[in-house]
Amino acid sequence: MEERTEIEDLGEFGLIDYLTRNIELYNASTVLGVGDDAAVIDLFGKQTVISTDMLVEGIHFDLMYTPLKHLGYKSVIVNLSDIYAMNATPTHITMSLAFSNRFSLEALNEFYEGVYAACEKYRVDLIGGDTTSSQKGFVISVTAIGEVAPDKFVKRSTAQKGDLLCVSGDLGAAYLGLTLLEREKKIFLENPKIQPDLEDQTYVIGRQLKPEARHDIISFLAGKEIMPTAMMDVSDGLSSEILHICKQSQLGCVLYEEKIPVHDQARELAMKLGLDPTACALSGGEDYELLFTMKQEDYDKITLNEEIAVIGYMTELTEEPHIITRSGNKHKLAAQGWNAFK
Amino acid sequence: MEERTEIEDLGEFGLIDYLTRNIELYNASTVLGVGDDAAVIDLFGKQTVISTDMLVEGIHFDLMYTPLKHLGYKSVIVNLSDIYAMNATPTHITMSLAFSNRFSLEALNEFYEGVYAACEKYRVDLIGGDTTSSQKGFVISVTAIGEVAPDKFVKRSTAQKGDLLCVSGDLGAAYLGLTLLEREKKIFLENPKIQPDLEDQTYVIGRQLKPEARHDIISFLAGKEIMPTAMMDVSDGLSSEILHICKQSQLGCVLYEEKIPVHDQARELAMKLGLDPTACALSGGEDYELLFTMKQEDYDKITLNEEIAVIGYMTELTEEPHIITRSGNKHKLAAQGWNAFK
Repeated sequence: MEERTEIEDLGEFGLIDYLTRNIELYNASTVLGVGDDAAVIDLFGKQTVISTDMLVEGIHFDLMYTPLKHLGYKSVIVNLSDIYAMNATPTHITMSLAFSNRFSLEALNEFYEGVYAACEKYRVDLIGGDTTSSQKGFVISVTAIGEVAPDKFVKRSTAQKGDLLCVSGDLGAAYLGLTLLEREKKIFLENPKIQPDLEDQTYVIGRQLKPEARHDIISFLAGKEIMPTAMMDVSDGLSSEILHICKQSQLGCVLYEEKIPVHDQARELAMKLGLDPTACALSGGEDYELLFTMKQEDYDKITLNEEIAVIGYMTELTEEPHIITRSGNKHKLAAQGWNAFK
Repeated sequence: MEERTEIEDLGEFGLIDYLTRNIELYNASTVLGVGDDAAVIDLFGKQTVISTDMLVEGIHFDLMYTPLKHLGYKSVIVNLSDIYAMNATPTHITMSLAFSNRFSLEALNEFYEGVYAACEKYRVDLIGGDTTSSQKGFVISVTAIGEVAPDKFVKRSTAQKGDLLCVSGDLGAAYLGLTLLEREKKIFLENPKIQPDLEDQTYVIGRQLKPEARHDIISFLAGKEIMPTAMMDVSDGLSSEILHICKQSQLGCVLYEEKIPVHDQARELAMKLGLDPTACALSGGEDYELLFTMKQEDYDKITLNEEIAVIGYMTELTEEPHIITRSGNKHKLAAQGWNAFK
């Protein structure tokens, strides 16, 4: 009988590890390949950072409650976020789309309005792409290109023992926004006469539908001459991302629940929905904040920036990554991030 | 009533023109944007060429007769072909995939074997990508990156009146291979007991399932110090591509039917299937040959290369692009290339 291994048993990262296990590189210019937020190629002494992401209807977004303009905006942002997560500045994107004939030109135009709005805000050039049809559903593939001064890019694998673990902005709100939108969709499908009630939850809805990429954090760190020792963006959920940094840096860490930044509106809504705000932050995903480690001696430089929270520190590998709860209990950190294959 | 314009009324190129009509560029490094085989960005004095293509199951390929390894190979090749068509050398690719749970790890592995085989043959590094699930079907998005000496890239818009129109290899065979595979699929679906009869048509089947990108032509031209005045690859069919060069260069052209290179096996099969070999070459697509224009004075340098055929010449715009048939008749050249939206 032919062997058959289900993809969902491996998950995305297991799959990538498996498929790239024998990868060979032929060009001396390839500085960093598969396995980080973006790849780095050395072009004539300066370095170019490249990242790509695919968004699939029904998996990553639901057009029932996602305005096309917001979707266009978000599909650019999620890619720019990967470039910033390398400590680089995005400069160019390409965008390929596949869509079925239920999409009109007016619909695509709306989508591109969002794309161009993101390009304008982040000063990025759309330089190419491909448009084609699909039998079903809308598929978006974006490749983002950025630049970084030689060897100033920041990987996931270079955190050091004792480094502070930091995160920008707040976490969990995008997931709560999604939860609310899904709830209202379900109610609407059961009874189309009931109007959606988003309870004026503009903050969490905005975090889900119109995320931003944290270029301000990259600028701030550069201005303060802080070079993060490791960095990545929070797309799948905080715990999953922390575990990536720990695994790739071969370290453990201690995370403090009380230090995890959660927005007041997100906390209140979580309570109301019967969800644990910390669990939303740890496993929710799509926050597009920056998670980074830095040397302890840089601590004084960030204390006045309310957009950066120190949430823990890196330890030796002998200590498994764990979280200290508000009540003082210690739990092993589990990856419960979003998995496109489940 | 809300306005609704059907995409198929515009076609891919009309759509791209429409969606990019107000495009703004923010980076001085953007040398060439949307509208050619690839974009060009100037990085630190040298130039980088970027191209992207999306392949969708049911639109671009049929897994009933396409081995996954071949599909992986071809999905790299079609992108490298765009880079060569800019007179550049591909160096890196990223590859994003979306697939449903009917794909096993073993199936994906087969696909990647083809990807890696193409990377090895063309000395290109796979540096990143994204793998995600789809509700239905297999979607492949590849971005290829290449390098070119400053201002040595070749656009579609720079052909000059009097230039020779040239094409590499032969045309129409990939389309005939597809026709044969589609015929056998239909017979098989009607009666699964009948074994497919591909009539030892290895050449045309190979042209469809395992195309190559013409790096040899780029090397040859460079070796002979021939700088094409305009160039693109033949992916949608010869007539469609010639019309692109004419339109973008604001010229007309004369094409000679008898000069269009068609492989003997392709010609014989076409006859057998009741198809016109010239029509297959003009409208078939997927040949991934290079179509280029060059100065007449370079003619002597190419006469000994059997892989390059001079098929016509560029004229003033006043003369519409046309073809002179074997019987001496003159016909207007019509774009009947492949259209993903029909």
